[in-house]
Amino acid sequence: MKATNNILLKLTLVALIFTIVSCNKESNTVSENHTQQNGSHPNLILTQESVSNIKSELGNVPVFDATLATTKEAVDLAIEAGIDVPIPKDMAGGYTHTQHAANYVNMQKAGVLFQLLGDEKYAIFIRDMLLEYAEMYPTLGRHPQERSYARGKFFWQCLNDSNWLVYTSQAYDCIYDWLPEEQREHLNTNFFRPYADFLSVETPKYFNRIHNHSTWGNVSVGMIGLVMDDEELVDRALYGLKDIDIDKKAIDNDGGYIFDEDGKAGFLANLESPFSPDGFYTEGPYYQRYAMYPFMIFAEALQNKKPELNIFEYKEGVLLKAVDALLNLTDANGDFFPLNDGQKGMSYFTSSLVSVVDIAYYHGSQKPELLSVAKDQNAVQLNASGFAVAVGLRDGKEQPFIKESMELSDGANGDEGAVGILRYNDDNNTMGLVMKYTGQGLSHGHYDKLSFSLYENGEEILQDYGLSRFVNVEQKNGGGYLKENKTFAKHTIAHNTVTQNGISHFDYDFETGSNNHSEKFLFDASNSEVQIMSATETNAYPGTKFHRTMVMVKGTEFEKPYIIDVFKVNSETENQYDLPYYYFGQIISTSFDYNSEKTLAPLSDKNGYQHLWKEAQGKADASSIQFTWLNEKKFYSLTAATSNEDAIILARIGANDPEFNLRRDPTIILRKNDTKATVFASVIESHGNYDSVAEKANNAYSHFESVKVLLANEAYTAIELKMKTGATKLLILSNNDASKEASHTLDIDDANYQWTGAYYFK
Amino acid sequence: MKATNNILLKLTLVALIFTIVSCNKESNTVSENHTQQNGSHPNLILTQESVSNIKSELGNVPVFDATLATTKEAVDLAIEAGIDVPIPKDMAGGYTHTQHAANYVNMQKAGVLFQLLGDEKYAIFIRDMLLEYAEMYPTLGRHPQERSYARGKFFWQCLNDSNWLVYTSQAYDCIYDWLPEEQREHLNTNFFRPYADFLSVETPKYFNRIHNHSTWGNVSVGMIGLVMDDEELVDRALYGLKDIDIDKKAIDNDGGYIFDEDGKAGFLANLESPFSPDGFYTEGPYYQRYAMYPFMIFAEALQNKKPELNIFEYKEGVLLKAVDALLNLTDANGDFFPLNDGQKGMSYFTSSLVSVVDIAYYHGSQKPELLSVAKDQNAVQLNASGFAVAVGLRDGKEQPFIKESMELSDGANGDEGAVGILRYNDDNNTMGLVMKYTGQGLSHGHYDKLSFSLYENGEEILQDYGLSRFVNVEQKNGGGYLKENKTFAKHTIAHNTVTQNGISHFDYDFETGSNNHSEKFLFDASNSEVQIMSATETNAYPGTKFHRTMVMVKGTEFEKPYIIDVFKVNSETENQYDLPYYYFGQIISTSFDYNSEKTLAPLSDKNGYQHLWKEAQGKADASSIQFTWLNEKKFYSLTAATSNEDAIILARIGANDPEFNLRRDPTIILRKNDTKATVFASVIESHGNYDSVAEKANNAYSHFESVKVLLANEAYTAIELKMKTGATKLLILSNNDASKEASHTLDIDDANYQWTGAYYFK
Repeated sequence: MKATNNILLKLTLVALIFTIVSCNKESNTVSENHTQQNGSHPNLILTQESVSNIKSELGNVPVFDATLATTKEAVDLAIEAGIDVPIPKDMAGGYTHTQHAANYVNMQKAGVLFQLLGDEKYAIFIRDMLLEYAEMYPTLGRHPQERSYARGKFFWQCLNDSNWLVYTSQAYDCIYDWLPEEQREHLNTNFFRPYADFLSVETPKYFNRIHNHSTWGNVSVGMIGLVMDDEELVDRALYGLKDIDIDKKAIDNDGGYIFDEDGKAGFLANLESPFSPDGFYTEGPYYQRYAMYPFMIFAEALQNKKPELNIFEYKEGVLLKAVDALLNLTDANGDFFPLNDGQKGMSYFTSSLVSVVDIAYYHGSQKPELLSVAKDQNAVQLNASGFAVAVGLRDGKEQPFIKESMELSDGANGDEGAVGILRYNDDNNTMGLVMKYTGQGLSHGHYDKLSFSLYENGEEILQDYGLSRFVNVEQKNGGGYLKENKTFAKHTIAHNTVTQNGISHFDYDFETGSNNHSEKFLFDASNSEVQIMSATETNAYPGTKFHRTMVMVKGTEFEKPYIIDVFKVNSETENQYDLPYYYFGQIISTSFDYNSEKTLAPLSDKNGYQHLWKEAQGKADASSIQFTWLNEKKFYSLTAATSNEDAIILARIGANDPEFNLRRDPTIILRKNDTKATVFASVIESHGNYDSVAEKANNAYSHFESVKVLLANEAYTAIELKMKTGATKLLILSNNDASKEASHTLDIDDANYQWTGAYYFK
Repeated sequence: MKATNNILLKLTLVALIFTIVSCNKESNTVSENHTQQNGSHPNLILTQESVSNIKSELGNVPVFDATLATTKEAVDLAIEAGIDVPIPKDMAGGYTHTQHAANYVNMQKAGVLFQLLGDEKYAIFIRDMLLEYAEMYPTLGRHPQERSYARGKFFWQCLNDSNWLVYTSQAYDCIYDWLPEEQREHLNTNFFRPYADFLSVETPKYFNRIHNHSTWGNVSVGMIGLVMDDEELVDRALYGLKDIDIDKKAIDNDGGYIFDEDGKAGFLANLESPFSPDGFYTEGPYYQRYAMYPFMIFAEALQNKKPELNIFEYKEGVLLKAVDALLNLTDANGDFFPLNDGQKGMSYFTSSLVSVVDIAYYHGSQKPELLSVAKDQNAVQLNASGFAVAVGLRDGKEQPFIKESMELSDGANGDEGAVGILRYNDDNNTMGLVMKYTGQGLSHGHYDKLSFSLYENGEEILQDYGLSRFVNVEQKNGGGYLKENKTFAKHTIAHNTVTQNGISHFDYDFETGSNNHSEKFLFDASNSEVQIMSATETNAYPGTKFHRTMVMVKGTEFEKPYIIDVFKVNSETENQYDLPYYYFGQIISTSFDYNSEKTLAPLSDKNGYQHLWKEAQGKADASSIQFTWLNEKKFYSLTAATSNEDAIILARIGANDPEFNLRRDPTIILRKNDTKATVFASVIESHGNYDSVAEKANNAYSHFESVKVLLANEAYTAIELKMKTGATKLLILSNNDASKEASHTLDIDDANYQWTGAYYFK
């Protein structure tokens, strides 16, 4: 077959490249232990060899044994409940949706149980269910719910059908050899192959994108192709559909473009383009979490069936780097930072991440830090990968996974900005500061250049709103995105960054946003007492340059670190600049006067502002203001340099929200009017706590007296922090030269400062 | 001296009464072991005998040893920091306030350490500090902050000065014999006696009330009197000031009346009047917690020095009952229900409750349930009481303290209404339903007849707002009550009960409220599947009768119990009735249509309504409505019988709150207009949860289809609950006869129902 020759040629080329690439790296010792098992199932995620190894050790590997027992319990209950393959009807969260989702999960588990426990009832369960699906399949058109740009059959969108197939392929592999040939033939010919075609050639605008949806699509087709030894499907999965015609203007139901300029498609393209060399996935951690499972499970299948691909070394081992990056994009509780569209509360305790961590451990270099994540997860994938992890845990090999400060570049080549994370950890306290200076992030991207969020001990202090959606809560728009996601959550004003003239970055235009990205300027966490990150943005508003620098300082003066935030703006024209800080909790004190509104109106009628109630407005009337609040029994203060005329707006989310989709969270907005160039300079502190049992307020006051911009010219920005003790700190930033080697000398008032490197701080 | 003869006569009488009262009770076995130690200090809280006993066992009693070590560490730090007795200046939360509070705590601890460890440095610390206080004392007028009706010297209010003296008396007792006689004389004559006079004869309107303030006042004078063997002070403490003239109209700075009609005063009167025979303290649990320490510590001192008083058997052992009641007035985490003025977050983990629990254990019947509370507290009082507790814990004698359903009567004679608590406990879930049908509760009372709050696993589901105050947070009005406490938190509309015509109960008149109370109707928790409580209120609005019945049902149908709420209203006139439910979290769905407001205005301009933003309003337009919300990853629903014309208002706290003193919490208000008689009948359920890691909504829908009032006449109220399964439940309440014996027969539509007892439920 021509297709087969084609793929063989490509694979040979790919393998050659990998061999060259991997010459300078430690070779993957584990992968050498794997032998190809073509033709003898299982050979996808489980292999005959690994099944035999695992069976001989059952009862001796606690976490594996416990996971197996939990799995058995769940599947036995499902078998007892009986097979239920309803006619598809409901949206996400509804009955038929939930049932079909439960079915693929149970089948996948039953396959494993059949292999490891040898009890035929599990094989029978899968067979009978598959036969029901195969019988129903030809009778189905596309799903009756019409919301998706790519409607599925069992589910309202092909995405979920692909989920189904990724899991079911694993179940099918487990009973493949056990099935009579005629049933296998029947399922292959009349169900699985047509189903794979449906998800690919019949739905090209779903299958051929650079997007997490398509990754699932590619992988589902590839997985079933590997099971059936259908090289045409595997080829399609790896390289996408060729010569198809997609409308350049077509958008999906989330508002993302479908067409890819470069015509790239398929699994390898999806591995190539959205991942940076550091393993950051441009859609953001929430979707990276979602995409990592198909990436890793298919990689594991490829490693088992096509080890010559060396898939784990592709793009200098980007898959393994991606797992490491993803685990680092979390707060102290393991919750992913909700950058771009991200639902809060999702964490690396999700079951797909169990597989991802185990696969990364086994097919990577058996990092003992991953074992401690697995230990927290307290479950493993039931195959050789999970088995290796369980053995590692049994043998006490784990080491703490310490989240360090790091910068993760964005863009396929790592040159499209980055996410910067500054961390502080001691025995009593962790702080995490996340700054986003990336590219747009595909269709799930937010218009939030240079925005940040701040965490303390896994709690949000200054939040990123995340998405506006209740995933799988049927009552809320069938579990899908809510319209406030577009009208609020994606807009600039919903983020802790500057909005100019009440208009979002890139005029809220997806194409413009996608063609641009912020630029890294400086990231230096080498000094644990003064960690700094800095980036610029020149395209969000033509003619205006943003340069934000954030510093995490932990000296000996105070118990906890404090944050210095310097947001420099330079424009050719006079503009209004709004900088919100989305805090939580109750206001304790303000240094400025304000007038509370007798009735509430929205801040404006568009660009996200229509969703903010204006609760109060004041004038700074001073060269520095202070704002103290109390949340979850902790005191925080923002001390900001101001000019007399600066307005301060106290606002709250919730206006124009007729279905109460938005949380009623508060914000303080610093506003400068009719200004060309300015510097927003602030100190953010967590400084005290309230003991509600002793009724004692400890350190309820800020340690700072004022923040002052001493100098702001093209080359330098100088900020003075004055503490209540009378002591001062001076921060001077070099605006143009971030190199460590550069020498600087600067006069401010009558004093001369000389230093080497990007900044002065003393 | 005449005064001494006088008190001896009284004490003899009191002792005689106690002897008679206690004839029918088990005698207190512990108290018999105590011998009077007059003249040989310590003899107040510690005694020479107990010190000797404890010292011989140090090192063998883990919790005692650990508490002692923690105490030593704290005091050593304080000694190292040096003595600081600043000139009084600040409000609560400010520096001088906090320092003087720290001083008395440290002195009390240092006294214990001196006795138990024998290190003189602790005695020296106390002596030197007392001499500084004694030197400063004559130079001080009343505190410069003028907010209190009874300004203190070291603090802005006498209350805190009394706190100081209660603790310091204990320290003084510990070094009394160690001090040279001339220093003792100096302190007695020039400091403590004048200070005691200042708090009593010089501030009669503070000292002579029935109020927690005065309890502290009485006890402080009594404690120092016992230390100095000053019988005049002890007499004053026990019986109050005689023949003083207090303006009948005088009110304190919290708005409470000072004058007591019956002219009662002193410790025994404060023990008599605010406590019901069940041990409920009419001000509510938050202030009961505050008052229990002086009550119990003085009782312990009296028991040591005047055992003939048999103080723990006074009023049939009300002190011990009060401790039991207080521990039961808590949620699953031990947080006190915030009835009346109560700050949320206060719990029985507060240090004063450590003493209270230990004293109750030792001087009561050594209940093993108290040990489990002490175990959670993980600390003990450092005297014989705490030692007994620590020994009990060491010996593993504790038994679980299980909070059962109970009714706690209010009023000195137990005939002024009650608080009802219905509870459900299983391995996964606890529910607590608290209904308030008490008297006014003195100056800290709220206008909230028949209100309720609902808890699940220690979380608030439907809240009682509590007070509006940040206790000891100086920035917030010096830590004192905020004006919104009077303008919102005390008002009826701030509670989950009915407001008529937009006016609070008793027209918000303290005197009227204080002259009335709700009436118990029924409390029956004997059937764990159907627990019921019911009460009436006929005085809140003249001409209108309220009758609320709440039922907690736990059958086998659902995982968790559900609540039936039947609020029957009968009036001679047509009125508007508002019934709010203060929920938390986000709205998931409503069965009714509503219009969201484009701009927000307050609900009205007075009676608490001025603090509620009207966010949306709808019309029921159906005979039953449903409202589902999500909070902390759990789904809840309210299903309520309605008539078509009923209005439904979605509101949020926060209007007319210029200093952001109020929390922005939401409420749903059911409103009936132009109605004489009606029944609000609802079902409240906790029915599901959201797993944010699996992104799965479990049981996101209510189990109920509708609630319908089948019948509501003078004698009976019948409510039909229809479930989604089609099954129905019928609840019939007998409105006039709650007796268990009464037989009833009733025709509804074509069916006849016969039953015995207060209600029918099937």
